[in-house]
Amino acid sequence: MLELKGDERLDYLLAEELRIIQSPTVFSFSLDAVLLARFASVPKTRGLIVDLCSGNGVVPLLMSARTKAPIIGVEIQERLYDMAVRSVAYNGLDEQIAMTHGDLKQAPEQLGKEKYTLVTCNPPYFLTPSNNELNLNEHLAIARHEIMCTLEDCIISSSHLLKQGGKAAFVHRPGRLLDIVTLMRKHRIEPKRIRFVYPKQSGKEANTVLVEGIKDGAPDLKILPPLYVYNEKGEYTDEVRTILYGDEPPFLRR
Amino acid sequence: MLELKGDERLDYLLAEELRIIQSPTVFSFSLDAVLLARFASVPKTRGLIVDLCSGNGVVPLLMSARTKAPIIGVEIQERLYDMAVRSVAYNGLDEQIAMTHGDLKQAPEQLGKEKYTLVTCNPPYFLTPSNNELNLNEHLAIARHEIMCTLEDCIISSSHLLKQGGKAAFVHRPGRLLDIVTLMRKHRIEPKRIRFVYPKQSGKEANTVLVEGIKDGAPDLKILPPLYVYNEKGEYTDEVRTILYGDEPPFLRR
Repeated sequence: MLELKGDERLDYLLAEELRIIQSPTVFSFSLDAVLLARFASVPKTRGLIVDLCSGNGVVPLLMSARTKAPIIGVEIQERLYDMAVRSVAYNGLDEQIAMTHGDLKQAPEQLGKEKYTLVTCNPPYFLTPSNNELNLNEHLAIARHEIMCTLEDCIISSSHLLKQGGKAAFVHRPGRLLDIVTLMRKHRIEPKRIRFVYPKQSGKEANTVLVEGIKDGAPDLKILPPLYVYNEKGEYTDEVRTILYGDEPPFLRR
Repeated sequence: MLELKGDERLDYLLAEELRIIQSPTVFSFSLDAVLLARFASVPKTRGLIVDLCSGNGVVPLLMSARTKAPIIGVEIQERLYDMAVRSVAYNGLDEQIAMTHGDLKQAPEQLGKEKYTLVTCNPPYFLTPSNNELNLNEHLAIARHEIMCTLEDCIISSSHLLKQGGKAAFVHRPGRLLDIVTLMRKHRIEPKRIRFVYPKQSGKEANTVLVEGIKDGAPDLKILPPLYVYNEKGEYTDEVRTILYGDEPPFLRR
């Protein structure tokens, strides 16, 4: 029996295959998390996966549809961790997804070093502002600003968790691209695939970047085709609709 | 009176506005050089411009159509330098474009440090291979491989030539992107604008990258919209046709 707390609601993921608990005042997942779950090189069967900065568990939930590998989600905010645990249980995924409530900086110690195949992370995007600029909603502030962890913390933990040849996938703002790739290389994760996300195909700059690297990989960077979110009518493009709703648009189902 | 040597021919640039001497066995300019000349933030009137690895002078010739600023081209191969000098003279541009025959590593000493507004460079793309893999045509080998200068040499010279706030624009292969941006930052040129060039709009990876940075600039990277070279029919896209031939396609002229 599902318990929803406060203004939580039970939203759909991938059309009707999965459900996820969200809350407008506590945490709702972003399109970026959905794109990350799709972009990452998820192993089909074998392997061990960790998702850092897991929030309400959206990335583990989405990846579970593409793999039989166990997935561990790490979230520092107890309130979000609790939402994720209830969503995992509601979807009957307790055997595949294990949420842990903790600090990603301790994750390699707690979960084991050099044993993971894939680490995903949708980190806070914004540098920590001064207190008076900070989002007054503490849950949203921690999710969005580098209060509890910096980008480098995320990359260091990812590197320690990964075995040699393991992959780490991140999503971030293009303005931080140089920091991400520099920090990845500094911590032995060689960037191999980059994909830029553009709001639409009309001369706008990219507003999101997806990056995947391989631990101790050889330099050989590929820039994948751009991903456009909206078409000229302001609707999701076919590619984004497929990522969001699965292979068929929902109105074609049942 | 123009003298053409060996298999040289006089090709058009920007429809019929400019002519350039080329040779299939010595040197022909690439689309990348044309894209670089268009991508760079060319000052309209004031400023001083240097083009390194200038080849047959294609980048200075193209930029001259967009600025009144003086342009210096630096080319190490005497045979190519000689082609560039004759092309500049043929177009009556001796007062704006000065070609110099020399090594770009000495360019800051010879041309003056910290005084230039813009440096452009379309460097050799390939690391120096072993002798038996090297292109047997010495002119092409030097233009394509890091025989006479490395990527870092190009970036060091660019940085020394540039005044504070001056811009440097490079074109290269995406596989070297991380090296370029790392070396630019190492030598005080902060990457600010990146544009990826894709062969066509059909799921292919980018095959060229254009990067511009500002000397001592603040970090703030923009990823510009992708540039597609060919449309689905295998013809140049409208954007590339405009860059190559000017604002009107040649068949609409005269």
